[in-house]
Amino acid sequence: MNIDNVKSQMRKGILEYCILLILNNEKAYASDIIRILQEAKLIVVEGTLYPLLTRLKNMEVLSYEWIESVQGPPRKYYQLTAQGQAVLTELGTAWDEINETINHLKKI
Amino acid sequence: MNIDNVKSQMRKGILEYCILLILNNEKAYASDIIRILQEAKLIVVEGTLYPLLTRLKNMEVLSYEWIESVQGPPRKYYQLTAQGQAVLTELGTAWDEINETINHLKKI
Repeated sequence: MNIDNVKSQMRKGILEYCILLILNNEKAYASDIIRILQEAKLIVVEGTLYPLLTRLKNMEVLSYEWIESVQGPPRKYYQLTAQGQAVLTELGTAWDEINETINHLKKI
Repeated sequence: MNIDNVKSQMRKGILEYCILLILNNEKAYASDIIRILQEAKLIVVEGTLYPLLTRLKNMEVLSYEWIESVQGPPRKYYQLTAQGQAVLTELGTAWDEINETINHLKKI
């Protein structure tokens, strides 16, 4: 049996929520987001993140601006939109409900 | 944007864990499991559950026996295997880690 798939599905389910949490009240480069998600063992390779960022951008949950860097080419700097902030609140509520469900099921 | 998809993905990620929690230390009919998952708003239609039960059965995480009923045909009665009990413990640890991650990200 492959329990790793089940655990991986569990982590996959919260990726968008985690990205929004990371961008809550602060801007970040994709490289910052990748580092934090890798440290949290939520993603393994950085390639996982880019389609998610594009999807969240298309959903108008986040936006980016190009920032000139002293060395190397300009880089994208991501931030939550006002709508993204509202979505983050809504996902936070959904997360709390899921937690209550798990805690309830542990007791029955 | 479709935040419902994101929330639905979140719930989908914990479905197997919840089924195992429901079967922890007790047997249940599919109809019992469906009722509990529907009450918890984790599934909408019962058709969602059967492929999951088959998958968990194939993973040898759960087994079933046929129970004769007073009225109607015999029904499948599901229970965790010894391996399923171990998997439940492992998913519980994974869940705790995810919770720690979320709580950590809320603070940064």
